[in-house]
Amino acid sequence: YSASTTTSTDPYAKEPSRHPSLRVISAKPFNAEPPLDVLADTFITPNDLFFKRNHLPVPHIDPNTYMLEVEGEGMQTLRLSLRDLQTKFRQHTVTATITCAGNRRGELNDLKEIKGLQWGAGAISNAEWTGVYLRDVLLAAGLSVDQVRGYSVRHVQFEGLDCDMAGTCYGASIPVQQALDEAGEVLLAWKMNGQPLPLDHGFPLRAIVPGTVGARHVKWLGRIKTSPHESGSHWQQKDYKSFTPSVDWGNVDWTSAPAIQQVPVNSAICDPTQNVQLSVQDSEIVAKGYAWSGGGASVVRVEVSADGGHTWQVASLKQGQASLPNQHNTDPWNGTSGARNWAWTHWQASVPLTADQKAKAVKENNGKIELCVRAIDSSYNSQPESLASMWNLRGVLNNAWHRIQVDVKNDD
Amino acid sequence: YSASTTTSTDPYAKEPSRHPSLRVISAKPFNAEPPLDVLADTFITPNDLFFKRNHLPVPHIDPNTYMLEVEGEGMQTLRLSLRDLQTKFRQHTVTATITCAGNRRGELNDLKEIKGLQWGAGAISNAEWTGVYLRDVLLAAGLSVDQVRGYSVRHVQFEGLDCDMAGTCYGASIPVQQALDEAGEVLLAWKMNGQPLPLDHGFPLRAIVPGTVGARHVKWLGRIKTSPHESGSHWQQKDYKSFTPSVDWGNVDWTSAPAIQQVPVNSAICDPTQNVQLSVQDSEIVAKGYAWSGGGASVVRVEVSADGGHTWQVASLKQGQASLPNQHNTDPWNGTSGARNWAWTHWQASVPLTADQKAKAVKENNGKIELCVRAIDSSYNSQPESLASMWNLRGVLNNAWHRIQVDVKNDD
Ligand SMILES: [Mo]
Ligand SMILES: [Mo]
Repeated sequence: YSASTTTSTDPYAKEPSRHPSLRVISAKPFNAEPPLDVLADTFITPNDLFFKRNHLPVPHIDPNTYMLEVEGEGMQTLRLSLRDLQTKFRQHTVTATITCAGNRRGELNDLKEIKGLQWGAGAISNAEWTGVYLRDVLLAAGLSVDQVRGYSVRHVQFEGLDCDMAGTCYGASIPVQQALDEAGEVLLAWKMNGQPLPLDHGFPLRAIVPGTVGARHVKWLGRIKTSPHESGSHWQQKDYKSFTPSVDWGNVDWTSAPAIQQVPVNSAICDPTQNVQLSVQDSEIVAKGYAWSGGGASVVRVEVSADGGHTWQVASLKQGQASLPNQHNTDPWNGTSGARNWAWTHWQASVPLTADQKAKAVKENNGKIELCVRAIDSSYNSQPESLASMWNLRGVLNNAWHRIQVDVKNDD
Repeated sequence: YSASTTTSTDPYAKEPSRHPSLRVISAKPFNAEPPLDVLADTFITPNDLFFKRNHLPVPHIDPNTYMLEVEGEGMQTLRLSLRDLQTKFRQHTVTATITCAGNRRGELNDLKEIKGLQWGAGAISNAEWTGVYLRDVLLAAGLSVDQVRGYSVRHVQFEGLDCDMAGTCYGASIPVQQALDEAGEVLLAWKMNGQPLPLDHGFPLRAIVPGTVGARHVKWLGRIKTSPHESGSHWQQKDYKSFTPSVDWGNVDWTSAPAIQQVPVNSAICDPTQNVQLSVQDSEIVAKGYAWSGGGASVVRVEVSADGGHTWQVASLKQGQASLPNQHNTDPWNGTSGARNWAWTHWQASVPLTADQKAKAVKENNGKIELCVRAIDSSYNSQPESLASMWNLRGVLNNAWHRIQVDVKNDD
């Protein structure tokens, strides 16, 4: 018997195979993150290691009969095949990082329990996406700027073809201004790193909304709808929102917070990994990781501390492509896309460790030294320090300083 | 003898008169902020109370002979009178908050000395600005999107008519993409709150760059120049930049940090003011103040704590105009300007005080209780906690939690 003999009533019977290195957070639906040290190795995350975040079973869609429906306020209805998209519109490739809102939820959960997937710091990845601008498709359907200015159209809703057994499908929306902004580069993408979209990433078509939380990058995209209203979906209305720490499941008012769209500046230490043991001979720790900010902002500085933020070492910023983040230092607004940077920045820092520090760690802290990181973006937003003040009901958008423990005990 | 008999060699002999309530930080050049409790009283700051930030003596310009020069890469040279600007282009009014980069520098200086004006939290104000879009003027001069895409034009430089005795005049620049973005609403403004620009605010014309630090809103605007390069001025290159706390005047590398443009989320408690004495009968403190974020982001939440951030009270958000920030809660991207909010938000919070807290404050802390505030914006960026980690050479962009002490000692 092979795995494919699962009974056909299991909606997860036809899931694709996945890379064995992924850390599985949930099997059904499939949610998994790559190991952090692997994540920090490449500017472009390979497709099979890119974090997977599915809300429902993976649908299997025939690309030959697939039709995207485009409809709603201010537009005529269009039905577009993949071939229509690929031949009737100009193609664009955008390098964009995607993060799950729940990235780093596990740290918050350690403080106080949170319902939800217990992500580490690996629910973020970066890829090159190829497709057409959503803007061009909306304009082809007749959407006019007057419709938008008059507010009869305020949102663009995306409906996925991933559905539960009761027929509820994934959905989300973005503001129409973002969809129409040329510099926003919102894509309908069919390629990921030069390959057709993998099944786990929305084959045959997904929305790519650069600088915006992953939940709006709707996969297995079936319908695009303009509307005066946001998507009414659970995931737009009652999930991806953040509240003050005292809001709990008994008193939450979902209408009191905006749906998460652009995400704040964030960073993580990917190497060394948590509780790694260092040689006590080392007089420095070499740390590396990622930093990213939503909304097209660039990362301008990353800093690492081995003394709880008392002193900071400035990291060197790296990247896969010369035209990307390194230019921030002299001209933060001019990336490859002309105006905005959608991709993360890898960084590396050397943090000196004195013999005194190590001796003190062994004596007072069971050999543990804490490293923390913070990033500063091109609007000079930076990360809050306190995890406790960051805690929120859904455990979303944790961008407190990322902290790991390294072990300098002498075990020989 | 009147004040006007000052010898004519004093470049500050012809300064305008100013409102007596202003707290003067520097007399020559004139820099002053309004009292915080006054600042929190009105959504629109009256012109005479709007913070004044001059780098040089106030120039006196004859509006009848005034000509704006528009020149540079990719454009024909234009010379425009005020009447040309007012009659040849469509007029727009934008409500925009301006902050000095040095707002709240005083708090950082208390930690470790900083050269510079010792601003409190009042170097921020909000006004309605009327003028024409810079975009429309650049397009009229023939600037083409192709020039910009080809990177022969990357910046728009502004030159002020305020100069020192050696002939060096104020100057700054912004990225050309921002200048050309319709949604960016960059203005050449001649009116402030319906009145001609006051002398202190740039009469007869100033640049208004919504969401961007005050230093780029060049006053007494004489020339606009497109260029592949940023402004070479001291204020663009060697002043309005931020560094890690360990950078000092001995090791600063000015090219290592980008010029400040968009500013981070910030907030302050305006009432009660520092060290105010409360009645010990009070079982709550009613606090009010402002919150603002640059780059067109909206403020979505403001929180006040009386226990160092252990618990937070959510403030109610107020505003002068119904169409402004209150809509953030349901739809953060749709303000009056269609896409972005440029104005601050006033807030008010009631923070409960228990008898135990007050007794403890009297016993252990000389009767002092500390209030702190933080704001969260529509990209869910929020403010860092630690003032020490915020410290930087020039003391700019301090957006650490704002803290004040109130006094609950029983003095009777
Ligand atoms: Mo997510
Ligand atoms: Mo300033």
